[in-house]
Amino acid sequence: MTEIIRPTLVIDKDKCLQNIEKMAQKAKDYQLRFRPHFKTHQSAIIGDWFRLFGVEAITVSSVKMAEYFFKHGWDDITIAFPVNIPEITNINRLAANIKLNVLVENKEGAMALADKINHPLGVYVKIDTGHNRTGINSSRTGIIDNVIQILTKNKKLKFKGFLSHTGQTYYARSTNEIFSSHFDALLKMQSLKRRFSTKYPDIEVSLGDTPSCTLCTNFNGIDEIRPGNFIFYDLMQQSLGVCDFDDIAVRLVCPVVSKHPSRNEIVIYGGAIHLSKEFLLNVAAKPYYGRIVIDIDGEKKMLGERNYVMRLSQEHGILRVSQKNFHLINVGDLIEIIPIHSCLTANMAGSYLTTEGEVIPMINT
Amino acid sequence: MTEIIRPTLVIDKDKCLQNIEKMAQKAKDYQLRFRPHFKTHQSAIIGDWFRLFGVEAITVSSVKMAEYFFKHGWDDITIAFPVNIPEITNINRLAANIKLNVLVENKEGAMALADKINHPLGVYVKIDTGHNRTGINSSRTGIIDNVIQILTKNKKLKFKGFLSHTGQTYYARSTNEIFSSHFDALLKMQSLKRRFSTKYPDIEVSLGDTPSCTLCTNFNGIDEIRPGNFIFYDLMQQSLGVCDFDDIAVRLVCPVVSKHPSRNEIVIYGGAIHLSKEFLLNVAAKPYYGRIVIDIDGEKKMLGERNYVMRLSQEHGILRVSQKNFHLINVGDLIEIIPIHSCLTANMAGSYLTTEGEVIPMINT
Repeated sequence: MTEIIRPTLVIDKDKCLQNIEKMAQKAKDYQLRFRPHFKTHQSAIIGDWFRLFGVEAITVSSVKMAEYFFKHGWDDITIAFPVNIPEITNINRLAANIKLNVLVENKEGAMALADKINHPLGVYVKIDTGHNRTGINSSRTGIIDNVIQILTKNKKLKFKGFLSHTGQTYYARSTNEIFSSHFDALLKMQSLKRRFSTKYPDIEVSLGDTPSCTLCTNFNGIDEIRPGNFIFYDLMQQSLGVCDFDDIAVRLVCPVVSKHPSRNEIVIYGGAIHLSKEFLLNVAAKPYYGRIVIDIDGEKKMLGERNYVMRLSQEHGILRVSQKNFHLINVGDLIEIIPIHSCLTANMAGSYLTTEGEVIPMINT
Repeated sequence: MTEIIRPTLVIDKDKCLQNIEKMAQKAKDYQLRFRPHFKTHQSAIIGDWFRLFGVEAITVSSVKMAEYFFKHGWDDITIAFPVNIPEITNINRLAANIKLNVLVENKEGAMALADKINHPLGVYVKIDTGHNRTGINSSRTGIIDNVIQILTKNKKLKFKGFLSHTGQTYYARSTNEIFSSHFDALLKMQSLKRRFSTKYPDIEVSLGDTPSCTLCTNFNGIDEIRPGNFIFYDLMQQSLGVCDFDDIAVRLVCPVVSKHPSRNEIVIYGGAIHLSKEFLLNVAAKPYYGRIVIDIDGEKKMLGERNYVMRLSQEHGILRVSQKNFHLINVGDLIEIIPIHSCLTANMAGSYLTTEGEVIPMINT
């Protein structure tokens, strides 16, 4: 820690391993294939940590990420993003080398695959179970059938089943709402599977956001889960009731550069290009961009909720720190910020440092 | 354009050159040193475009950026960020090689410089003229004097004068408010310069955010301006009345992956890791993350304000597109998004593509 001179994303490897182990065990208990989403960490070395728990299949969110993890030895990859037609040559090239799955949700995507793919490729139909971002509404079985029909024109394409992301759990106002969104998605996917399995008997259902996968205990009819964020967790997950502060495995370590006692503000080197501008609202409905952890006599202490990152510019973070704690943080100190959204924070880090001092490169390092 | 297969930050070099030329000319007209801020583009090649207009001195926002531009031939650099004590060895090393200036705003920073620096180093005292982010309040002349006194203990340190960033112009509700913030800052800086120039006759004043530098016409008593964003501009500047849409030189080109007519939404490959989560509020007080430009029969057209990026996740952008325009955008098309904040968008791009097809690397490429 004492060698850190600029904003550095530090991860606690033991916590990461615990988080992975817990989720892998849960998947095993419910007889689900565990296909973790690697968009959260985007690192080949961290990817290898999953192998310790028997993971052999992964999810990514772009062709570029699939290419990166293929280069690092992964040969069973689902690109959980609507097929991007301009990248079809890259998809075809990957399909020649590994077990690859992609998602379709419209005729255009299906036709592009049917026309251009000449290596074995798994295709899931992306279903919208209420998140309203991507996917075909689960009730539109006519459209779903049309899309599947197009796929069957190309013998290299294998219709694998239905995939959904219950992302509405991120807007839940209580853990009950997470349970209910998950259960609703479950019913919709079960019903689709039943309907189409007469014609396609071996189709599968893939679900799995971090909130549902962490909290829920009913996975009937589900074959695979794809959570990603759980390896690090973050304040968003904590505020949803999905994890405890103590489960969060990632922190941005930042030098303190300035103190402004007249307005209870402290300035750190660590801004929007390190944390991202993702925010949550505090009890006073004010946005905040992270919580503060400091070192008191060798012991880490998270300051109370009246202490937070209140504003970000490109490289600056402005902390609001209560009168009581103000003297605990001084110019030249290193403090730790717990990020709101670990995926976006990690994406900008370039690399990680573990609490044990190991530098871990990631995709763009 | 037809070779783009994934989100790509495209810049119009001619517009960039026009924007640079205009600002360089303005600095000349007002007899100001033009020390542009390179944090916006972070690219050595783009940096060279400034040399065409006589620029020899630059501003950056981190030691890392200073090291990068030093490596690319720049030898007169101001790091416009409060001195970060853990990086003092790096600052000293740079000071051995180039004309380097740093900012102090407290005793701790001044003492660290006085103790550790053993190469000639220029030091500006950072003044807060109302932005309330960093700097010593301009009225606290006692504290300012104390800080200067500390600097004089080390003969290698040269007190250069006062520097401020009138960042409150970014919160202006009218261009009048920009004028008035700038004028207020001007008066405060003039007064400080007068007060301290009896003892330090050659001190200078450095000011310069993009809104003030673009719009204002009174720079009495100012020696140097440091705008950065103006090379690209963006929707934030346009919404402040600082530039026209037509001055904006940067766009994120994105493939369309999905259409959802039932809710007038279109999904693009291009998300928070490309645009950043910086947003503005539209007339209905809804956040938006970018405006949409499409190609109609070879002609670029920006769609009206009822068409915008309404939501972002890591890789997805969700567009709200009016009924009237909905048929103009189709799956597989490339469309262009005008970003809210070009600095944050550029920071994540990795590289640029010019409209003429040249790939331009940047600091982390």
